[in-house]
Amino acid sequence: MGTNEFYGEAIHGKHHYFDLGNFPLIKGGTLRGAKLAYKTHGTLNARKSNAILFPHMYSGSPMHMEMFVGKGRTLDPAKYFIILPGQLGNGISTSPSNTGAPFNQAAFPQVMIGDDVVAQHRLLTQKFGIKELQLVLGWSMGAQQTYEWAIRFPDMVMRAAPFAGTAKTSDHCKVFLKTLIEALTTDSAFAGGFYREPHAVHRGLRRHANLFALMGACQQLYTEQSWRALGFSSLEDFLAGFWQNWFLPMDPNNLMCMMRKWHDSDVSLHTGGDLKAALGRIKAKTYVIAFANDMFFPVADQKADQKLIRKSEFKVIDTLWAHFAMLCLTEADRKAIDKHLADLLNEKV
Amino acid sequence: MGTNEFYGEAIHGKHHYFDLGNFPLIKGGTLRGAKLAYKTHGTLNARKSNAILFPHMYSGSPMHMEMFVGKGRTLDPAKYFIILPGQLGNGISTSPSNTGAPFNQAAFPQVMIGDDVVAQHRLLTQKFGIKELQLVLGWSMGAQQTYEWAIRFPDMVMRAAPFAGTAKTSDHCKVFLKTLIEALTTDSAFAGGFYREPHAVHRGLRRHANLFALMGACQQLYTEQSWRALGFSSLEDFLAGFWQNWFLPMDPNNLMCMMRKWHDSDVSLHTGGDLKAALGRIKAKTYVIAFANDMFFPVADQKADQKLIRKSEFKVIDTLWAHFAMLCLTEADRKAIDKHLADLLNEKV
Repeated sequence: MGTNEFYGEAIHGKHHYFDLGNFPLIKGGTLRGAKLAYKTHGTLNARKSNAILFPHMYSGSPMHMEMFVGKGRTLDPAKYFIILPGQLGNGISTSPSNTGAPFNQAAFPQVMIGDDVVAQHRLLTQKFGIKELQLVLGWSMGAQQTYEWAIRFPDMVMRAAPFAGTAKTSDHCKVFLKTLIEALTTDSAFAGGFYREPHAVHRGLRRHANLFALMGACQQLYTEQSWRALGFSSLEDFLAGFWQNWFLPMDPNNLMCMMRKWHDSDVSLHTGGDLKAALGRIKAKTYVIAFANDMFFPVADQKADQKLIRKSEFKVIDTLWAHFAMLCLTEADRKAIDKHLADLLNEKV
Repeated sequence: MGTNEFYGEAIHGKHHYFDLGNFPLIKGGTLRGAKLAYKTHGTLNARKSNAILFPHMYSGSPMHMEMFVGKGRTLDPAKYFIILPGQLGNGISTSPSNTGAPFNQAAFPQVMIGDDVVAQHRLLTQKFGIKELQLVLGWSMGAQQTYEWAIRFPDMVMRAAPFAGTAKTSDHCKVFLKTLIEALTTDSAFAGGFYREPHAVHRGLRRHANLFALMGACQQLYTEQSWRALGFSSLEDFLAGFWQNWFLPMDPNNLMCMMRKWHDSDVSLHTGGDLKAALGRIKAKTYVIAFANDMFFPVADQKADQKLIRKSEFKVIDTLWAHFAMLCLTEADRKAIDKHLADLLNEKV
């Protein structure tokens, strides 16, 4: 699959593709012949009791979560069967960039976080016969999927670890998304989403990246020039070499598809707008893990979610990398994340 | 003066205009026949010892500072002679919008905060014979001018109150300015700054306003919907009715002129890049006053400045209005600001 070579397996690694058939979407559209791309590590045991699900963040792919998986890492494939599902719209699963007319590009139907979770649930139950998950975890939009899982399928999720995300997108975060969307859509090359070539929209992608630079790392990180440790030589070098470099290869419609999911993410859709009732459905032992200085999902917002979850604990990781601490750009960030995951996996449930 | 009626006295009130003649700029340009627009309240006493200088913020005018001036207010014209100078580039003083070819619009020469302060110094000394200022105060870019005053003319400034601003623009703030500039300049109607009509750039002005909405008020304010107290009915209503409404009447080149000043603001230009040495020159009794949750000029950055100033104290005003607390949108913000100003004016120097 895929027409943009950036989204190919040469870059993102070998995937499996689960056939979702004609997949009806919450908002009313249908993905025809839909595919859910995913990776696995380890082996499902005979009792099917060692599965972990780890969906990914905005603009990412299953590959990006693999840094937490490996021998001697917290998510050890010798012990666990780890499933890394791709988001719908991520460029590898069914996405605007790999769907033909008439549902191509800007005509791709609207997808919700709940659609991802339903698709993942079908993969787990139909393909693998999994009835329980030792852990669902995710960062940012991965946290949104984690909350959706724990509320939609509370009896399946033993433990949950939403990192740097909230159960419902805040109004401030919607303002941020508005500025991101404007950055892409106001590039004249975007052409209402029917561009000839995704890279033609590079000015919009650069502006979108600059907004990530603005909101994604905290003020103090810039003051201390912590980016020097990554080998960047100036502020402009960091903006282009780190933030713009991340987004430039991507397809703008894929990003738009994921941003709309992010914007509309809200578990209280299950309970008529009652967030307390929605979070009250969670049965999993839950660690709500926030990153200090996060401007996407502030610590206080995550704390407010945690208070509404029965068997939950709140953790804050002190880091200047703010929302992007999950990239483990410092050894301290990596150790703190690993410790919370190890502790949670050791919790009796 | 002025070709855009928004910048006229019908809206901004009666000004005086000090003739700067051919005014040489730090960066090498010259403003020919330059005018410094200003307002005054109260009467200069015989000893010329009761003057207060109160420059204004980005996108503002002397009018916006008048809310702190009046009978029974902290800055009482019965006691003080209060001078409210207009920034160069504010649309009322000499600005891109009121300068003819060849220095019109995008060809307007680059102005620095130091140019404003030199112009204001000429006004004070040549027009009024003022040799000392009881207080220089300002918010945001007004704080930048306050720092510049206290360092450039340390023997003139008895007391200084920079609100929500730093002595040197931080790298993070420069990223913010980059996104603001991109919001304006990427509107095709901007036409490299040589637009036919400023209001044609309204899409860029709206996007610029949305970025102010994103960074100008804190996340919690949006969560608590504090904007309801101002009469707005929804998030979109607040974005358009408050933030976009503020910027839409303005001239984009005037904003660009002020943003470049903001970007390059740095008192350590006086001391070869040594910020400690620059702030060490300040003789004024100084209150560095920060607003909690300020994402333009974080509390920590202002605290770092304060530590380098000899006779200084650090104050933090707890507010959800963050950088925009200075607008006194709540009575608590107004009272806190008034109290610090009253205390500072009561300090013996």
